[in-house]
This record gives sequence, structure tokens and C-alpha cells, in this order.
Amino acid sequence: MEKMKQQFTDLLKEQNAYKEALGLIQWDLRTKIPKNGMEQRAEVIGLLSEKIHQLSTSSQMKTYIDELKGKTNDAVLEKVIEKCEEDYLRSSKIPDHEFKEFVTLRSKSESVWQEAREKDDFSLLQPYLEQLVAYNKKFATYWGYETNKYNGLLDKYESGLTTSVLDEVFQKVKEALTALVKKIEQSEVEIDVDLLLHHFPKEDQEKFSLAILEKMGYDFQAGRLDETIHPFAIGINPQDVRVTTRYDEKDFRMAVFGTIHEGGHALYEQNISPELYQTPLASGTSMGIHESQSLFWENFVGRSEGFWQSHFDLFRSIAPAAFQSLDFTTFYQAINEVKPSFIRIEADELTYCLHIIIRYELEKDLIDGELEVKDLPEAWNQKMEDYLGIRPKNNKQGVLQDIHWSAGDFGYFPTYALGYMYAAQLHHQMKQELDLGTIIQSGDFAPIKEWMTKHVHQHGKMKKPLEIIRDVTGEGLNADHLIAYLTEKYSKIYQL
Amino acid sequence: MEKMKQQFTDLLKEQNAYKEALGLIQWDLRTKIPKNGMEQRAEVIGLLSEKIHQLSTSSQMKTYIDELKGKTNDAVLEKVIEKCEEDYLRSSKIPDHEFKEFVTLRSKSESVWQEAREKDDFSLLQPYLEQLVAYNKKFATYWGYETNKYNGLLDKYESGLTTSVLDEVFQKVKEALTALVKKIEQSEVEIDVDLLLHHFPKEDQEKFSLAILEKMGYDFQAGRLDETIHPFAIGINPQDVRVTTRYDEKDFRMAVFGTIHEGGHALYEQNISPELYQTPLASGTSMGIHESQSLFWENFVGRSEGFWQSHFDLFRSIAPAAFQSLDFTTFYQAINEVKPSFIRIEADELTYCLHIIIRYELEKDLIDGELEVKDLPEAWNQKMEDYLGIRPKNNKQGVLQDIHWSAGDFGYFPTYALGYMYAAQLHHQMKQELDLGTIIQSGDFAPIKEWMTKHVHQHGKMKKPLEIIRDVTGEGLNADHLIAYLTEKYSKIYQL
Repeated sequence: MEKMKQQFTDLLKEQNAYKEALGLIQWDLRTKIPKNGMEQRAEVIGLLSEKIHQLSTSSQMKTYIDELKGKTNDAVLEKVIEKCEEDYLRSSKIPDHEFKEFVTLRSKSESVWQEAREKDDFSLLQPYLEQLVAYNKKFATYWGYETNKYNGLLDKYESGLTTSVLDEVFQKVKEALTALVKKIEQSEVEIDVDLLLHHFPKEDQEKFSLAILEKMGYDFQAGRLDETIHPFAIGINPQDVRVTTRYDEKDFRMAVFGTIHEGGHALYEQNISPELYQTPLASGTSMGIHESQSLFWENFVGRSEGFWQSHFDLFRSIAPAAFQSLDFTTFYQAINEVKPSFIRIEADELTYCLHIIIRYELEKDLIDGELEVKDLPEAWNQKMEDYLGIRPKNNKQGVLQDIHWSAGDFGYFPTYALGYMYAAQLHHQMKQELDLGTIIQSGDFAPIKEWMTKHVHQHGKMKKPLEIIRDVTGEGLNADHLIAYLTEKYSKIYQL
Repeated sequence: MEKMKQQFTDLLKEQNAYKEALGLIQWDLRTKIPKNGMEQRAEVIGLLSEKIHQLSTSSQMKTYIDELKGKTNDAVLEKVIEKCEEDYLRSSKIPDHEFKEFVTLRSKSESVWQEAREKDDFSLLQPYLEQLVAYNKKFATYWGYETNKYNGLLDKYESGLTTSVLDEVFQKVKEALTALVKKIEQSEVEIDVDLLLHHFPKEDQEKFSLAILEKMGYDFQAGRLDETIHPFAIGINPQDVRVTTRYDEKDFRMAVFGTIHEGGHALYEQNISPELYQTPLASGTSMGIHESQSLFWENFVGRSEGFWQSHFDLFRSIAPAAFQSLDFTTFYQAINEVKPSFIRIEADELTYCLHIIIRYELEKDLIDGELEVKDLPEAWNQKMEDYLGIRPKNNKQGVLQDIHWSAGDFGYFPTYALGYMYAAQLHHQMKQELDLGTIIQSGDFAPIKEWMTKHVHQHGKMKKPLEIIRDVTGEGLNADHLIAYLTEKYSKIYQL
């Protein structure tokens, strides 16, 4: 028994070594690697990924699970075994050759997507998407599902969640937000975003970004900030969690809110309990909970009035002369402008969820066979018109904007909106326990980080997403808090 | 046969993947990693190193070598097999448990060395060095050697070289250089290095360093320049070869000559023939030949009169005001000052070899049992006095300055001096074939890079070090060219 535990731990450490190497390679790929180095690096990525997959589905792994499960008297180890079993079952149900075909298809499809987007030609991508949808349907069948195939995919990204729950909460959010957007359109408050678009040198944006990360409680002994094109945070190991951001010298919002967002992800990974290190539990529990952390910081803190009350002086001390005449209210309003737009990643806090709901509804219909890939562009544009009141003029502004589907990921999009709802639920609960307004205004965020670490971060994957939400808030998924928060905030800004 | 070739290639690719991941990890460790990330990363390094070792000594490897050797009709593949066989024999001769003990001892010893150096206390390190010497003696016995044990170690770093050859050439070099140093001491030429020690901002040093790398023909599509504490170059793969340098704002020489030196290493790795990619031959053939490339660029090009004739204007256009009054001759003399000093890595071009010869003589005596570790400090100091005319005041300035022995590396030091001799031999030959003076003065170094690629770089490990030297120069190892070059150069500078 002890010997087998040791062997199991060794196997996990080996797997972890490949994962950690891959993590560094991914970070490097998106920040530092010289162009020509990529070709051979791609083979290395393929090989290390294959090793991880092999270990997950190895006969030793099966033996360890079968022999150890329920017999270890060790809560962490039992959760580790449970997680390994989940991975084992998920991975071993797909025949090796099909998984390899899928991986190859996906990487081809991603590069076709680049071309299709550049040329604004959906027909190039269509055959690839059709095959990727077919594979996903097949995988859902292998994995098993309740009610509809899409549930089988959803479970992969947000364990325990189903379309019947999502349909209900998304319907609520959709109704509330579309109504709010309409009211805002009729508001007489005029917000001038152009006031923010002065030249802001990169080095100064970096200085401000670093200062904010420091204030958030991000540990620079266990991380660093670098520049990239598509910002991300990555936990290479729990003591090496790196943040990246992008500097647009004509629009500082990109870097500032991007850094706060990624900083939120990073705080999660930096504050996992050390007893989970080197196990598959030493990372955020789900995409949704992860996004709750980034969005909590970006919006509930970073776009709040209190935050800027405590940071506007710092901002102005670093910002160029052109920003010095901005008054606080104008600034605060401008960073919270609501305006329906085509591109998801450029959307404001309020309309963002509508972008996600559109994608959710479409991908669910694709997987459940109620929509064909060829009809996707038209369906996309129609929903944009119905929910946001604007219609893309081309597919580049529409269905071709995101990489997710081309990368074979179906069931992932909803986690972005779940993150919003979770964040609002955590925010609501935190307000009951902490004097949050005063804390944010004071600029000393230590109590927020402590609260999140206690309730969310430290647990890693020891708890499922809904378990965390229920343990902290006493509720299941609940859209009301998000709706209430957005309604209150934007009613005030737009004097509705 | 074809199937086995494929399996062999797959095994090499797997091994290469671990090596490439380790390469990136090593680069990151010395440039970017946050402090706390190191602890877990060390385990990853251990694990990946072990996988590489396992594959090198695996029964499959043995089978492929036995079955394929001499039967493939493919010159590259045969060399690959030969290299794998060498590695297999070298690695498999050491019992696993002894190798592990050695690795553990070495890593402990490295950290003890740090402490011993800080406290200037050799006695802390002594027991570790004694054990490391004992292991090296044992390994030499396992590997086999001719005449004396030290030959067994030497062969690991510079295949084919023996102490009888080294003793002869080093004796020659020692006599010539000590005589030269004495003459220089009596010269009436006075060189004032202080003229170089004005403040030179880091960003400007970086600008100059990048410009020089570009001129050397370093490919920035296949590499990058970063800052570090101990400069190095690393080929993560042949299309991702990175250079690092160190900026001392009070002494620009550190960065400029350091960058040129590492750039020379990098050019070697960037210009390996693509037919060797993903094989164990896709790297420089030996430490000595590698050092010949870095030293060729650093000294024969970078410290030459012609180089500064073509780059002094560029230098002054980037350098701060304090440098503008420097005239060319004063500058050229100052960067070539000869002055015996205690620290190897700060030594000038002329006395550097004497530092190496001291280390060679001492480590040879240690391994062959003619010197005991406890007597090392005194022996060191005596040789410093004999060869360089100065006696270290403490062991920090003496025997504790280098990490090599504490890291268990015996037989490595001579490769630095070999690099000098090889570089001088290549330099001599290049002058017969190219109008080198004119080329260096013109600042267009393309013909130098082409010549080196043709004769050295492209071959990777297809040729052994002495094979390369013989094929290019028609000679074996020959110290005369180095002696002639140094005598001519410094006789002129010091008007001897």
C-alpha cells in the first residue's frame, strides 16, 4: 500500500514535470520565442502532450486508481485519485486514433481560421468546422450525457453544469440586459470616450500596471509581468505564475484593465494550498471560477468608483500632460461607457454577457443538431441584431472573430458568463462579511485577497465549482446578483 | 530495418524533446524565473534529466545501436549511431546508484561553494571536493583511460585529446606568455584604462550590443538578446539560439565583449546543417571548438584594430558625452591592456591562458593523485606567483573563485585554452584564404561567417574537434599560431 502510494506519487510527479515544461514553453511561445524557433518547438509540444496523455491513460494509472481508491484515509489523496479517475475515463473512452485525428484536424483548422478571417471567407473554414462539430458530437457520446449531447461537452469545462440550468439563468440575464441596454440608449447622459484616447507611453503604462499588480497582492517573488499580443496569465507552477499584458499607446485601457484581469487569474494560482503542489489539484477548479476571479478584479474592483477614488492621483502622477485636465467623474464615466459593439473582447462590462449568450445558444444548437454549420453566419448576425441591436457587416466582425470553435472547443464559451455570475455572487457575499466599499476606497486590498484565498484560491481542485459557490454563498448558480449589480451601477451612471 | 530506423528516430526525437524543454528551462532559470519558482523547477530539471539518461542507456537504445550500426548506408545516421553508442557506453558504465549519489553530492557541493566563497573558508568545501575527486577517479576507471586517469576525464570534454599533447602545448604557451608578460611589465607604454570607465547607460549599451550582433550575422529570427548575471549563449534548438549579456554601467567592456563572445557561440549553433536537426549531432562538436568560435569573435575580431577602425564612429554615436574626447589609439590600447590579475573571468586576452594552465596542472595532479585537496589553496597561490607574479591574499581571490570543481567538473578547464589555440589556428588559416584585414576593417563580416559555417558550424558533431582542425588547417593542435598572434599584437601595442 505505502509502496503503491509512492509509485502513484512518482507517476504524478513525472506527469507534472511534463506539464510544467509545457507551461513554460507556452509562456515563451507567446512572449519571447524567436519566429524560426517555433517549428521544432511545435514537435516538442506534441511530444510532451502525448506523454501526459499516455500517463493519464496508462495501465499503471488504472491499477493505482483501482487499488488505492477509498482506502487511503487521506482526503487530499482521495481527491487526487478521483481527479485521475475522471481524466482516465474521459481520455480512455476516446480511441487513440480518433483523438490523434482530432488533434491534427484542430491544428489545421486553427491556421485555416487565420486565413478565413483575413480573407473574410467563412466558406474556407466551413468544412473544418463541420468535421470538428462531428468529432465533438462523437466525443459527447463516448463520454455520455444526460438529456442532450451538449451537456456532455459542458461537463468537461464546468463539471456539474447542465443546459437546463444555463438556459434558465441565461434567459434571465438576456432579458434584463437587453432591457438595460435599450434604456441606456435612450439616456441623456453622454459619455465621451475620446477623452481617454491620448498618447500614453508604454513604459508609463507598464509602471502603472506594475503598481496595480503590487497593490492587488500579486507576489512578484512568484511571478512577473511581460508583454504579449493576446494577454494571458499562466501558472507554470504555483510559485511561478506569470502575467502578460498588451500596451496600446493610443488606448491605455487595454493594458490597465487587461493587467487587472490577468492579475485576478494569477492571484488564484499563486494562492493554492501548498499541500496540493505537484498534484493535479494544484490549479483553479474550473474555467468559470477562474473567470470569476479575473472579472471580480477587473470589474467589481477595477472599474468601480471607489477604486478610482483611491487610484486617480496615482494614475495622473504617471499619465502624460494630456490627461491632467480630466476630472474624476468624466474619467469614471468614460471607463464605464456602454455601447453595443461587434467584437466580444472589446465589449463593455454590460454587453459582454450578451456576446457569450449568443455563442452559447449557437454552439448548443450545432452540437444538438438544430443548426447546421453552413447556416451559422446568418444565425450569428440575426442574434446580434436581436440582442444587441447591431448587425455585423461581414463575418470578420461576426462569426469569424473567435478562435474557440476552430480550435475544436465547444462548451467553453458559457464559462465566461458563468464567471460573471459567480463573481457577482461572491461580490454579494463579500459585502455581507466585509466593509467592501471602504476597503476598495482605501486602496489596501489585503482583506479582499485574504477572503478570496480562504474561500476560493486555497482549495484548488479540492472542490468542484458549484461546491465552492454553495459553500461560500449558500446558494447554487444565481443570476440575480449579477443583474442587480449591473442594474444598480449603470442606472447610476446613466441616470436611468 | 526501415521500421527499426523509424523507431530509433522516434526515440531520438523523444530524447530531443526533453533536451529542448530543459534548454528553455535553463535559459529561463538564468534570465526570467521569479525566485520562488525555482524550488519546484529544480525537481522538473531532475526528472527530465533522468528521462534523458534513461533513454540513453535503455535496452531499446542498445538494440537499435547493435542492429543498425554499419548497415544503414547513410553517413549521418551512422554518425548518429556512433554518438549514441559513445553516450551509451559512457553512461551505462557508471552504476545507477553511484551516478545518483554523484548528482546529489554535486548539487550540495555547489551550494556549499557559494557559502565557502562568501566566508572565504576553504575548509567548508574541502570534504566535498575530496569526495568529488574520488568519484571522478572512479568514473575515469569505469570509462577506461590510457597512461593516466585524467585522460579518461579529458576525453569526455574534448574527444581524442590527451595529457601528453596538452603538456607539450601548454608548456610552450606558458613559457612564451610568461616571458611576454614580463616584457610588458617593463614596457614604457602606459595604458590608462580609467578613461573607459565613464557611466554608460544600460539601454545604450544594449543598443550597441544589438548592432554588433546584427553585424556579426547573428539571426534575430532565430534568437534574442537578454540580460543575465553570468552571460551565456544557449541553443534551445538550432533555430532558437539565445544570447545573454550583462550590463555594467560603470564598465561597458563587460557587455560589449561579453556579447561578442556569446554571439560567437551562437553563430555556431545557428548554422548547424538542417540535416542534423533533431539528432544528437545538432550542436557544437566540443567545448574547445565552441570556445574557438567565441574567442575568435571576441578577440581576433572584437579586440582588433581593424574592428574598431570600422566601429569607433558607431560606438561614439551611441556612447555618452564623456567618451567623445577619447582618441582612437588611446581607446584601442585601453581595451587591450595587459595586467596580471587574480580573477580568471576578468583576465585580459594575454594572461587568460595562464589562468587556465594553472587550473589544468592542479586538476591533473588531483586526479592522478599527486596533489591532495587539502594542499590545493597553497599550490594555487604558488602557481599564481610563479606564472603571473601575483599572490592571492585570500582563497576568494584564489581557489574559491570558480564553480567548476565544486560542480564535479574535472577535465573541463583545458577546453578554454584549447579554444584559444584552435581560434588562432583558424585565424591563421583564414588569413591565407581571405583578405581578413580588409574584411574586418570594412565592417562587413559576411565572408567570415561564411568561412566559419563552411569549415566549422555546419558540421555540428559530424566531425570530432581535431578532425575539424586538421581538415581546415592541415595540422593537429598547434600552439605556435596563438603565440605568434599574441606576440605580434602585444609587441606592437607595448612597443616591445
